[in-house]
Formats: sequence, structure tokens, C-alpha cells
Amino acid sequence: MSRPPDGPDFSLADVAREGLIERPGADPPAHDGTGRVDLAFTVHSTAEDGAAVPPTTRGVRVPPGVTVFDAASWNGIAIDSTCGGHGTCHKCRIQVTSAVEVPVTRHDVRTFTPDQLADGWRLGCLLHATRDLAVEVPPLTTRPKAATVGIGRQVILRPALQKRYVELAEATLADQRTDLVRLTDAIDDLELTADLHVLRRLSTVLRQADFKVTAVILDEALVDVEPGDTTAVRHAIAFDLGTTTVVGTLLDVGTGTPLAVASALNAQQPFGGDVITRISATMMDPDALGRLQRAAGQTLADLAARVCREAGVDPHDVYEVAVAGNATMTALALGIDPEPLGVAPFVMSSAQPPDVLASEIGLSLHPRARAFFFPALGAYVGGDIVAGMLATGMDRDKRTRLFIDVGTNCEIVLSDGETLLSTAAPAGPAFEGGAIRCGMRAADGAIEVVKVDPHAEDPAAAVTLGVIGDVEPRGLCGSGLVDAVAELVRIGLLDATGRLVPDEAAKEVAPALADRLALVGEERVFLLHRPTPDAEPAECVYLSQRDVRELQFAKAAISTGWSLLLEQLGLEHRDVQQVLLAGSFGSYLSPASAVRIGLVPKLPVLRIVAAGNVAGEGAKMALLSVRERAGALALLEEVTYVELSDRPDFNDAFVEQLSFGS
Amino acid sequence: MSRPPDGPDFSLADVAREGLIERPGADPPAHDGTGRVDLAFTVHSTAEDGAAVPPTTRGVRVPPGVTVFDAASWNGIAIDSTCGGHGTCHKCRIQVTSAVEVPVTRHDVRTFTPDQLADGWRLGCLLHATRDLAVEVPPLTTRPKAATVGIGRQVILRPALQKRYVELAEATLADQRTDLVRLTDAIDDLELTADLHVLRRLSTVLRQADFKVTAVILDEALVDVEPGDTTAVRHAIAFDLGTTTVVGTLLDVGTGTPLAVASALNAQQPFGGDVITRISATMMDPDALGRLQRAAGQTLADLAARVCREAGVDPHDVYEVAVAGNATMTALALGIDPEPLGVAPFVMSSAQPPDVLASEIGLSLHPRARAFFFPALGAYVGGDIVAGMLATGMDRDKRTRLFIDVGTNCEIVLSDGETLLSTAAPAGPAFEGGAIRCGMRAADGAIEVVKVDPHAEDPAAAVTLGVIGDVEPRGLCGSGLVDAVAELVRIGLLDATGRLVPDEAAKEVAPALADRLALVGEERVFLLHRPTPDAEPAECVYLSQRDVRELQFAKAAISTGWSLLLEQLGLEHRDVQQVLLAGSFGSYLSPASAVRIGLVPKLPVLRIVAAGNVAGEGAKMALLSVRERAGALALLEEVTYVELSDRPDFNDAFVEQLSFGS
Repeated sequence: MSRPPDGPDFSLADVAREGLIERPGADPPAHDGTGRVDLAFTVHSTAEDGAAVPPTTRGVRVPPGVTVFDAASWNGIAIDSTCGGHGTCHKCRIQVTSAVEVPVTRHDVRTFTPDQLADGWRLGCLLHATRDLAVEVPPLTTRPKAATVGIGRQVILRPALQKRYVELAEATLADQRTDLVRLTDAIDDLELTADLHVLRRLSTVLRQADFKVTAVILDEALVDVEPGDTTAVRHAIAFDLGTTTVVGTLLDVGTGTPLAVASALNAQQPFGGDVITRISATMMDPDALGRLQRAAGQTLADLAARVCREAGVDPHDVYEVAVAGNATMTALALGIDPEPLGVAPFVMSSAQPPDVLASEIGLSLHPRARAFFFPALGAYVGGDIVAGMLATGMDRDKRTRLFIDVGTNCEIVLSDGETLLSTAAPAGPAFEGGAIRCGMRAADGAIEVVKVDPHAEDPAAAVTLGVIGDVEPRGLCGSGLVDAVAELVRIGLLDATGRLVPDEAAKEVAPALADRLALVGEERVFLLHRPTPDAEPAECVYLSQRDVRELQFAKAAISTGWSLLLEQLGLEHRDVQQVLLAGSFGSYLSPASAVRIGLVPKLPVLRIVAAGNVAGEGAKMALLSVRERAGALALLEEVTYVELSDRPDFNDAFVEQLSFGS
Repeated sequence: MSRPPDGPDFSLADVAREGLIERPGADPPAHDGTGRVDLAFTVHSTAEDGAAVPPTTRGVRVPPGVTVFDAASWNGIAIDSTCGGHGTCHKCRIQVTSAVEVPVTRHDVRTFTPDQLADGWRLGCLLHATRDLAVEVPPLTTRPKAATVGIGRQVILRPALQKRYVELAEATLADQRTDLVRLTDAIDDLELTADLHVLRRLSTVLRQADFKVTAVILDEALVDVEPGDTTAVRHAIAFDLGTTTVVGTLLDVGTGTPLAVASALNAQQPFGGDVITRISATMMDPDALGRLQRAAGQTLADLAARVCREAGVDPHDVYEVAVAGNATMTALALGIDPEPLGVAPFVMSSAQPPDVLASEIGLSLHPRARAFFFPALGAYVGGDIVAGMLATGMDRDKRTRLFIDVGTNCEIVLSDGETLLSTAAPAGPAFEGGAIRCGMRAADGAIEVVKVDPHAEDPAAAVTLGVIGDVEPRGLCGSGLVDAVAELVRIGLLDATGRLVPDEAAKEVAPALADRLALVGEERVFLLHRPTPDAEPAECVYLSQRDVRELQFAKAAISTGWSLLLEQLGLEHRDVQQVLLAGSFGSYLSPASAVRIGLVPKLPVLRIVAAGNVAGEGAKMALLSVRERAGALALLEEVTYVELSDRPDFNDAFVEQLSFGS
């Protein structure tokens, strides 16, 4: 029971000694903000008749500091919870089976016996994963009335999708009410409307089912009438429609439970890697819009088929989807010409896309399934950001918070608890590995973590690389690029202006690393990985001087963005209580490195939080609660969009932000 | 200038002598209520640049007593008018060029010079056509803000279809309003909504047209954006979707002008002649509903193509259609299973069909053109009757009026100026020529008018027949059947019980006709037409004893219906101030004969008014005015539907109504 040297802040011994250890809502336990942790979940469940079902296992990889509950939730693994991750419902019980000590909170002490605590039982929402863990997830015990999604958001379940089972009296000559009135009279708390397609089925289904039917309702629209009682079958799919990656989560909206998650590359990739190249494609080829639309639809349809197959759900039983995508992805998925988004003055057709049938965007679900698209604040602060603001509760938190979605286009939202500002910063492709000599996407073989020790005795051990897939390094992805630059700044191989220091100076500040400075062509580079000991510099994975410049420009664009927003609200760096790093790239960024290079304000790393796929979380919330969906629409009024491209002070600020100096 | 022996009630000489002759709104000039009149219209027009265009001619055939204005209007011939046919706007000027004297009203005297009156100029809305006339229609002089449709209904033009031409400021970085907001800000008296299809076009059209566009609006839905100013192009089609005949009228809803009219047999005919046989078809063959739906759609589509071609209108410029049909025709056109309409307790899916796209019912017009279907009061008092009530102003008139749509199913509405009652009476197919030995539809060769003179010196002249198409008689249509029975009752060849009197009695009461009583098989018949002097009775067109029984049952069903409604409001026959005979058959029925056989209450024939195609007129009104359309929907609340089939007093009343006695 002793506390291991590199153990967590609080051990069982602390509990025994001090009784009460952690305030809910406090900063998570300390970690150094770099690297990644692997969680191996073993998920137990029981069949409906109570019979045992073999457990399933699932490995997930998340930034350190994420709670076990969130790590599970983001990956579609359901854990009981009703309180929203505040440790109060005491339902999210999991068991850590790794042979390591994990911290104990006062809520754990109230929830578990000492024997259970010793066996690794903890509340998942309070256990921050700072190392690799094996976690057992017990079967769900309750059908919750609320679900925890997003960044600790507790959502009371009130989905747009409702089902009502009714048993109606048959018509007589004395009661000739129409079939529709007969049904709607029985559901008199809603003012139902019926479209042609449900009227085509209504009379037949009523009579075939002896007037015992389930009404399928979206908001107040009657979309189907099903024979018998099908109220338990209520599925929807949340999509994060990214420019690069698309993620689909199948939900049971009756319980809030995610049933399956799948992700895929956006099939629009052949038209270009970012929104501008895809918009350009539509401007040069009149057929491109149609092909881009079909590619988006195909990506969504493939994901829908996969999650349904995985969960054993009939696609016909999926009645709604929510899609969070940037303005260009949204336009392309809907078949709306994106050209005005791509050229000044950057105008959208409409901030709020209309409700459409899922079939209109290429999905084969219930024939009247509806697709909700998140609205956009501007051409470059799109529905993905609005969904992310919903998931992070940007408008429901009194703290001063900064939301940064890092990517080719970087979206920034600042809230001081009263005012909400948003802007977009054109960061360029560096974070996606574009325009970087050895750049690549975050795929197998990409260096995602870099640590250097300038004084290592063994020069081979002076650089430690984290590589996706644990294979031979092939290139450098965005988080690896940021790490590499941050580390070289830290040890002095890069000066404040972003220049690799001369060889002489290098030998002084980093004797173990100086021989990694080399030339590729006429450009100075820092060698990160040599495939063979005598490999030529050009055959290595390296960071070039120009790569540093690319990153400098990218980070300057972003920091100019949030600097101007801070200035507009009269705030300093230190006033920011939380920085949320969102998006597929932002979530994998090392907070320490982000602070080091000035990508985020100079703050303690504990205030820098990897927020995960917040767009997808927001999409889930929209499906689970009409109130949350209304909240997303309300953001259009609440958030002020700040256009940077015509600001006279932009260039000055930008030059100031280029520096790596503090 | 002297008054010819069979001339009109009032001549120019009367005008000269008495000054003032006729009260507006009074009964129309006397006619005997039988037969038909032919009107030959010569329509003059000018091109938009004022240049002369060759006149067109058109022959129409209407019951005597219909005004020249109505006769034109029902047949799609536009005459200037704004007052609603009350003689007050003095705009509906026409010239009678037949060499006959036509009556003059005080309004004519105020409107025209004596020379003009002598030349045949009259106000068309006050000139009742009691004989064949040739009529010149001058070019339209005004673009009216109101149109006269239905039975003297004046409709202020406020169509659901609106167009607005706007010139918008282009977007700038300082004004990044979305394209939709830019447009809707310019049309701020409406709260416009936009669906996906218009958003797909919006940005492109705005930029191609230099931000000078026309918004196409249906109610508050933006359905299209057209380059430039297209506000003059506003077309819609009104359909009377009858079980037998379908009529389409192309309208310019900006002026209320009908541009073309066409009619066709409903292509559902092969499935059966009436609604019950068509419902039965869907019950026996699962494919029949789809085929009936397509047949209805094809009929509507063919008519739409014809009226567009005739008027030189691009079908893409037709943005809305209104359809008035009975509940079964409506269900079949929409693809809704009609089975519950056909079996007790006769229940509809919904009283109000949903708004659908015209394309969903098989029409190829503007891709977002909408189809409005009239609501129904009951399974057998359908949208055609609601449209008819709208056209006749049944709920806006203080008089006690009885509306009867005669057909296989007969719909009856009674209003005492306060209360509105409706019911349906199953008359059977007799009026359509069904179940009648020599019965046929009202087509070429059908006897539609019968007059007999029991004391004619020449027996060949004792029977005068009016035959459609003026060809050799081939059979007897509904109005001819009613005339024949009425005439034989009048002269005593049929007794009050409906029995053909014995030969001896026949010779006494009708010496010139007695030899027309013959036997076909074992059944007594009355020969109406011998193709050759020595033709066998079975080769002749005749009225059989059983035919008389069929008509007796049909008229008893109808008169039982209105009798019970009168009884319910405590009214006598004589209290009824107007009987409106509606529908394709009702309008061609001889009022005198209808009174004689007891099909309508015993009233002076002048109170019996042929109302024409009121369903089609109601459909026009719904297209020309959202207020009138709302009025049609309000009828669902205002009218009480009386179900006769479970009334204990029905059979007694029915037996009482079988008699032809007074």
C-alpha cells in the first residue's frame, strides 16, 4: 500500500490518513501533459433474460489526464452514469485490474468498501488516466434518464425522436373520426402533423395491427406508425463529418447509450486534403459538386452500415441523424455550391441548413429518417464548432475559457462567462503534416511524440520517439512536429526567432544531439530518426528549418487569433482558466509543447485540456435532447463572429506572435 | 325594335318606356328550365405591344339561364370584371351579334349608349343565356385585382403564390450576411423559410444574376429564386378530379385570368365506373392501388400538358395546383389505401390531405410546385363538395339554400343561413346511365333532352329529342332519363307509383304515344327512338319499366337525404330559396324535370340553378386567394356531417320518397 515513486498524487494510504482528498471539479491529478496512454477495456454485459454474455475487449488510446469514463464514452463504451461526471451519482463503477496503484477520491471512499478499493474499484468519472490501464466495465444496471456526453455535460434525455404505444378503439358508425384524429386524440400532449408517407401507411397498419400501434414521432411530426409495441427501438446516428476523418456513433436515444462507433477517411480525399482544394474542384469542374456530394454520402452510408452491423441494429430502425461538419463539408454533403465560402467576402448560403431527409444525403435508414445539420457561425466557424461549443458548454460556464480547434483552418472561441467571441485563423496544412518535408498524417509510422535529453550519455537515447502503431518511424505528424519544435526550443537548439542555432552553439547546449544537425540539400535539418546507422540525412526522418518556419506561421496565425479575442475582452493570458484543445489533431497535441511554442496562452499545463471529438459529442447531444439542440441554435445569436481578415491590427499582432520567445 | 313573340322579358322598347327594369340579384329571366343553349364566343385580344391579334372562336353549350359571363368563365374565357357579377363594376362588356333581341337591364342602360345597346352590347354578368347566341368578347382592358369565379363569387386576388423582384447589395467583408438573410431582409413582410432545394440554387443564381432576382414564394416558403424580373409569370392549375371526368384550368393567378381549360376521362375508368368498384379493385389486387394512382397522375399530367400547350405556357412556370376530388379520388391520387372508405364504418385516413409536391402525384411542373388537395367532410362528402361549397358561398349567404351534387353518390348540403348540414345519399349508377337498359354516358348520340306532346297530330312529332352531337340517337344519358320519366309522369303514362299505365289507359291519355308502348322480352317499355320505321322494339332506344324503378330508387335516395336535412332544421320545401344542382350531371339536368320527379323540392323552376363545375371553380378560388382557401378549411368545423346509414327513420322516409305523386 506504499506510494510508488512515480505514482499518482493520492493513494489508498492517503485516504486512510486524510479521509478526504479531492474536490469535485478541481483540476485533474498532475501529469506532465505529454505522450499518450492506452486503456484496455473489458466490457461485461448480460442478455435481456439475465443470462451471461461473453465479455468483449477494446483498446483505446487517449491523451493523459482524460477520465476513464470519458475515454470509454468517446469510444462508444457505455458505463452507467446519471450525474454528468461529478462523482455524485456513484454509478460509473469500473475496476482497474492493472497491477498499479490508482488514486482514490472521497467519492470512491463513500462508494466502495476498502476491499473493493484494494481490488481496483473506482468511479470512472473521477479516475484520470495518467498511465496505461486495464479496466473492467460491469454490465449496465440502469436504464438512465440522463446521459453524460461531451465534456462532463449531463444531458436529460428528451430526444426529438419519441415513440408512443397506443391501443385505440375501433371506428363505428357512431364514431367516424378519421384514423389520424383517432391516433392524435390518443397522443394529446403533442400537436402531431402527418405527411403523405405516413398517411399512406396509417389506415393499413392500424387495421392489420388491430389498432394497437406505436407512433414514431420526430419533434411533432408523425413519421411512421408501426404495428405493436416498438417503443424500445429508438436509434439515431451522430456524425462528425470532418474534412479528413468522419466518425459515426450509433445511439439508443431512449437510454443515451452509444451502441457502436466507427470512423473512416472522408471519401472526398481524392479532390484535395482541405476545404479550399475541394471548393476549387467545384469551381473548375461542373460535375465535381455532384461527385463530392456523393462521396460524402457514401462515407456516411458506409459508416451507418458498419455501426448498425456491429450493434446488430436494423438500419430501418434508425430514425434520425445529426451531422456536425464545417461549413464546406456541410454544403458539400447537402449539394450546395460552396464557391462563395471559398472567395472573399466568404458568404454562406444560409447559417442554418434546413432539415432534410437522411435519404437526401445518401443514407438508407428509415425512409423518413431526418438529418439535422448543425448551423454555422460563419464560413470558417462551422457546425462542427457549434457542436463543440455545445459539448463543452462554452455558453454555460462562468469560467473564462478558450476553445481551440487546431487544423488547417483553426477555429477559436473565447468566453469570459458573459460574452462569447469566435474567429477563424488560417493555419495552413502544417498540423496535418502538409508542407512539412517529412510530414504525414497521424497514421501508422507517424512520430506523434518527441522527447529529447540534450545531455544523454548514449546519443542514441537522446531522442525518444512515440510512434503510432509502434512501428518503424516513417514521418512526422502534427503533434510530433509540435513536440519536436517545442523540445528544440526548450533545450536551445532553436532560438526565439525559430532559427536552428549554429553547429558550435549546438555542441555547447546539447552535446548529445549536435551530430543530428545536418544538411539536406542546402537546408539545415535536425535528424529525428535514422533508419540505419549510416543512412544519408535525406533518407532520415528529420525536421527542417523550413518546417520550423511553416509551424511558426501556423502557430502565429492561431495565437494572433486568440490574442485579438483576449484583447477584445480586456483579458490577459493568466485570466484564462481552461483551454480546450478540440478536433482530431488538437486532442492529440501535447499540452506542454503547445504552451512551449506559444500555440496556446502561457498557462500551467493542467489548464490545457484535450477535449476529444467534441463535434461528435455535440452531435450526440443534439440527438439526445431537443433542449440541447435548441441551445446549439441559440449560439447563433449568442456568439459574435470576429472577422480577422480585414482588421488593420492583424499584421502587427501576427509578426509579434511569430516568436518562440516568452 | 318590336318584341318578338318568344322574345326576352325586357326589350329595348321596354327600356325606352320604363327606364328601369330589373333588380340585381333577382331571379333570372324566365325560361322553361329544359334543354340546352349554344353560345359561340369570338374572343378578341391585343398583344402586349398593343398590336392586334386575330380573334379566336369557341363554342360552349350550357343549360338555359346561365349568364353569358359564367358560361365564358366556366369554359376558361376571360371577360373583364371586378365586382363579382353584380352589375356594379360595368366592366364585363360583351356584344351579342346574333340577330335576336336580348334583354336590357338598368345597368346596361347606364353603361351603354342607345346605339351600343342597339348593336347588342350588354353586361355579360346580367345577360342570362336563354337561347343560342353569338357573343363578341373585347380584349381585356384591366389587369384586375379581383376575379369573379364560382357562382358570382368575387375573389380579391391574394394567391399563395407570390413573386417578389429584389435588387440586393453584394456582400462585403463588412457585410457577411448569408445569402438567405440578405434575401429575406429585403422581403421583410414575410417570414420566409427555405428548403434544401432552393438553398442549392440560391447562391449560384444570386451571383449569376448580379443579385437581381425574383423570389418565388408559396405562402411563406421560398421555393425558388429566378434570375431577373419574372414577376409577371405566375401560373397555377385548378383540377376538378372527378370519378368520370377530370377538368384542368390553367390560371394566371396574378390576374385571375383562366388561360386554358381541358377535360378528359379519368384514366382509372378500366378499374370501374364508380368509386366502389375502384375501391374493390384495390382490395382484390395488391398492385391495383399503385396502378390507380399512376392512372390518376397520368390523367392530371396529360391535362396539365394540354392546357400549358394551348396557352403557350412553359410547364416549369406552373408553381401550384389545387385538386378538388371526392375522398376516394383524393386517396387514390395520393396513393392512400381507400379500403376503409369502402366498408362500414366508412372512415378516412385524414380529413385534410397533407400538402404534397405536384411531382409526388405525377405532375411535371416546376420541380417544387405544390399540390393542395381540398379536405373532406366525410368518406362520402369529399373535397369536391367542399370546393363546391366554397364556389357557391354556401357558408356566406343568408338565404336558405340546398346544394345537390347528383351522381352515383349524391352529396347534399343544406344551409339556412346559420347552420350547415351535409349528408351523402347512395343514388346508384342510374344518373350515369348505368343499370339502365339503353343507358349511356353523356357522349355523342346520347339523348339528353326529351319532350313529349301526347296529342300531336303527327305521331312521329309527338316525341322531341335533344341529342348530344346532333347525331342519330344511340342511348339515354342521365338528364334524358330524368326528362323521359318526368314527361311520362306529366302526361300520365307513368302513374304515381312509377308503373307504366295499361295500354287501354295509355290510348286515352296519350293517343299520339300509345303505340310507343311495347314489350322487350317480357318487360314493358316506352320507345323513344326507332332507327327505322319497322325496327323491332329491342333495336330501338327505349325506357323500360325497370329503368323507371332504377330512377325511382335513385331519386328516392336523394330526396330522402334532403328531406331529412330539411326536417332536422325544421324547414318545408317552400322555405328553400335556391337549389344548386352541381356536378357534371347535375348542371345538365332539366330543372323542370327534376322538380317533376321529386329529385328536388317542389319549387318554381327559377329557384333551381345549374351551378356548373363548382368543384373546379372552388379549386380556382383556392389558388387565387389564401383567404378563400382558409375558408375551405374552416368548413370542416362549420359543417355538421349527418350519417344517414344508421338512422332508424331512414327506411320510412325512403319509402315515402319513392312516389312520383305530388
